Amino acid sequence: MNTFKITVWNEARHEKTNPKVHAIYPNGIHETIAGFLSREPNVEVRTATLDEPDHGLTQNTLDATEVLVWWGHIAHGEVKDEIVERVKKRVLEGMGLIVLHSGHYSKIFKALMGTTCSLKWREANDKERLWNILPSHPITKGIGEYFEIPSEEMYGEPFGIPTPDELLFISWFSGGEVFRSGATWLRGNGRVFYFRPGHETYPSYHQPEVQRVITNAVHWARQTVRIPDAVPNSPALEQLPPDERAAERSTIGYQ
Amino acid sequence: MNTFKITVWNEARHEKTNPKVHAIYPNGIHETIAGFLSREPNVEVRTATLDEPDHGLTQNTLDATEVLVWWGHIAHGEVKDEIVERVKKRVLEGMGLIVLHSGHYSKIFKALMGTTCSLKWREANDKERLWNILPSHPITKGIGEYFEIPSEEMYGEPFGIPTPDELLFISWFSGGEVFRSGATWLRGNGRVFYFRPGHETYPSYHQPEVQRVITNAVHWARQTVRIPDAVPNSPALEQLPPDERAAERSTIGYQ
Amino acid sequence: MNTFKITVWNEARHEKTNPKVHAIYPNGIHETIAGFLSREPNVEVRTATLDEPDHGLTQNTLDATEVLVWWGHIAHGEVKDEIVERVKKRVLEGMGLIVLHSGHYSKIFKALMGTTCSLKWREANDKERLWNILPSHPITKGIGEYFEIPSEEMYGEPFGIPTPDELLFISWFSGGEVFRSGATWLRGNGRVFYFRPGHETYPSYHQPEVQRVITNAVHWARQTVRIPDAVPNSPALEQLPPDERAAERSTIGYQ
Amino acid sequence: MNTFKITVWNEARHEKTNPKVHAIYPNGIHETIAGFLSREPNVEVRTATLDEPDHGLTQNTLDATEVLVWWGHIAHGEVKDEIVERVKKRVLEGMGLIVLHSGHYSKIFKALMGTTCSLKWREANDKERLWNILPSHPITKGIGEYFEIPSEEMYGEPFGIPTPDELLFISWFSGGEVFRSGATWLRGNGRVFYFRPGHETYPSYHQPEVQRVITNAVHWARQTVRIPDAVPNSPALEQLPPDERAAERSTIGYQ
Repeated sequence: MNTFKITVWNEARHEKTNPKVHAIYPNGIHETIAGFLSREPNVEVRTATLDEPDHGLTQNTLDATEVLVWWGHIAHGEVKDEIVERVKKRVLEGMGLIVLHSGHYSKIFKALMGTTCSLKWREANDKERLWNILPSHPITKGIGEYFEIPSEEMYGEPFGIPTPDELLFISWFSGGEVFRSGATWLRGNGRVFYFRPGHETYPSYHQPEVQRVITNAVHWARQTVRIPDAVPNSPALEQLPPDERAAERSTIGYQ
Repeated sequence: MNTFKITVWNEARHEKTNPKVHAIYPNGIHETIAGFLSREPNVEVRTATLDEPDHGLTQNTLDATEVLVWWGHIAHGEVKDEIVERVKKRVLEGMGLIVLHSGHYSKIFKALMGTTCSLKWREANDKERLWNILPSHPITKGIGEYFEIPSEEMYGEPFGIPTPDELLFISWFSGGEVFRSGATWLRGNGRVFYFRPGHETYPSYHQPEVQRVITNAVHWARQTVRIPDAVPNSPALEQLPPDERAAERSTIGYQ
Repeated sequence: MNTFKITVWNEARHEKTNPKVHAIYPNGIHETIAGFLSREPNVEVRTATLDEPDHGLTQNTLDATEVLVWWGHIAHGEVKDEIVERVKKRVLEGMGLIVLHSGHYSKIFKALMGTTCSLKWREANDKERLWNILPSHPITKGIGEYFEIPSEEMYGEPFGIPTPDELLFISWFSGGEVFRSGATWLRGNGRVFYFRPGHETYPSYHQPEVQRVITNAVHWARQTVRIPDAVPNSPALEQLPPDERAAERSTIGYQ
Repeated sequence: MNTFKITVWNEARHEKTNPKVHAIYPNGIHETIAGFLSREPNVEVRTATLDEPDHGLTQNTLDATEVLVWWGHIAHGEVKDEIVERVKKRVLEGMGLIVLHSGHYSKIFKALMGTTCSLKWREANDKERLWNILPSHPITKGIGEYFEIPSEEMYGEPFGIPTPDELLFISWFSGGEVFRSGATWLRGNGRVFYFRPGHETYPSYHQPEVQRVITNAVHWARQTVRIPDAVPNSPALEQLPPDERAAERSTIGYQ
């Protein structure tokens, strides 16, 4: 099988400005995620960040990407619309997309969902327990009935998303909320997975269960086809009765 | 019960430039649709068109609209992005939306779906037979197992939409194609229904079954709540352990 | 509009043998539920219980029922298979069905779901907080973002159900679990709603929010059509080429 | 990777009594299907038929089966209920199930769907064109936009199934009908795929596209976990307040 090509995108701002975040992710969240994904056999993982030209997401890079992982938070507004459109087109053609945590408010996730993607939140001292609702799904492989994150930001319902195709995790928070914390949607030919952890001030991406889910998810989301958008004028496959207006139509030419 | 407020939107261009369309819809497609909807008890139907200021969709008008019906074709690109955003916000808050025929390619439908909304098409001499897949649904009430439109533009699969919440109609075309011609999605608090007929050069909106479906649909899509978007910072509902970092967080202030 | 005909079914055993349950529901859970449903305008509510002939569910009664509410627990096995089959047939034809609490393990719910319908459980001192995930749905009308039941049996995920058509409530339990506590499925022409509260040793059916949800649910589930099952041999709607084997087929006669 | 274990089940009656069917499938439909599945690398395909003891579906056989393929037609009623229950239990635990053509009316499919599974039908001279609605799905891999079967029995909507998780194929019939001819459902931990072709008097299972779909489907449906049914009484994961009624409960012992 061919090498599996993954790109991990990160806005990479907190790591530079917040010493606490820097201490947890000294090379950036993207490098931590790329690091554990690189341990998979036969993968090629690259990273891309907001401050690179084209945010590191040139057409060439996207063409060579089968799954894109996305982390963003305070700089969603700085992501250029044309790059968002480019990424969306690639997802609809077949590229997989894994959206993490505060990426729920990224332009690309909102564009693919068509909804607000809003939620409740609290930065406090919550414990999160993620219940595995679909144990037969490839993304939950190796996860037991649940796993816990000792301290995390709370995200609570209602979560402004369309009904997921598959609901994989529901989170319980010690402060009293619940959240659909792992869910999938097919968009065009691309598979999309949203996964709720992890806030930048907690070491969630160093936790084995979180790494396992993200690793499973990139395999699940791997591109199977790449089909460019088309709106073909299609000739009939069966004999139609004579069309007296055909000549007239050919001179008009609209859809 | 209060008066039910409906707005029918039409780009209203073909009717002015194509004598054949003008002959079928002398006052515009919007007036034909508004006409049969007005026969319902206790409704107030207004119309809006592309060439009005704000395309006839001021905030006041949208505030007073419970269901919006949308027909557009050759001028999707002329609909201003800010108006599309305004309509989308109202749908997510709770307004119903009925998208007709070539409205599959309108900015508002694509924004709510998040996909290409592309399809096959052919303007020829096709007969369309719409099979009723969900006879217990309010939208198909009074429609039997199927109904036929003697002559229509063909739309064929694959149709670039997310999996519908409910699939109501599947069309058979005499030229050999099939199409998911009636489907629903919930987006935020708003109900969305796409219905495939009718091309502007055919009298489909004069056909009783088509009128019945659209009439049923506006009732089904009627707004039940209006909930503005919010991303609240929510205090815990249960006692949390002491948070040593609380003071520090309060000075940072990001989500 | 015609009188709305509802039947509330209860196995009605705990109330006779457990003084604590008798104290909460002196006339049986069915009478408490029938009582608050009877306050709706223009309804006719009857009850039926396990120990009546045909469990109170004769064909005549079912023919005259638009929505059936079901509560059972310790005597699921005593419900006769032929009566289950009769109820299932009515649901598939169009009757609504509201399944409450331990009814998740009733024969009728399992027959309609096709799955185990198993779950975790604990009878302890849990508080349940039901989060409203779909505030625009008719069943959650008048319920705010959440409501609480001070003490309830815990039901936890994984819940062995097919993916719901609509997920309305997710419960948070103080002991650490979550549960999909309100969900809908269309089965044939009948609408099915499962609602998790209330255990017989708690006064949940006296709580206003629980009553509101069940009341909303019967309206939502009200029968819209009644379509008997059929497997018709259907003549072609379009001209087919000559069939040289037609005579031969007519003598065979299998489907 | 371990050997992939598949069992192909057939009632195997038409082949013995109808010379025309015998001519098309001289060793039975099951042997034809087992034949092309056996060409996959690293598979072990066995067959089972109605007239064997336990219909060839002993617990040992099912324990060693990862995906079961099912073809039945005139003898659904002869399949013993206890064997149906045994198969259903295995599917819910994780075994995949591929149901073919007239198997829509098998006891096992109806038990997993919970609905009538009824449909329209006609044995005539129809051409079937199967449109591929989800080209990125593993089951449609290698199938283009559509494929045709020159002559087949017609199956038409409405099809009495629950809304599929995924709709893969919609069929167009020359006699004027449409049909959801390829669809998936998750039931418990088991993946279920229904595929409409092929009637016993036509050589559909000799057609490459039909073979490709069934071959893709067994790979897609391959078991990922095996989780026995359980309804555990679960201790709290979080500290609960004192429960004054705990002692009392322990003597009662109901769920």
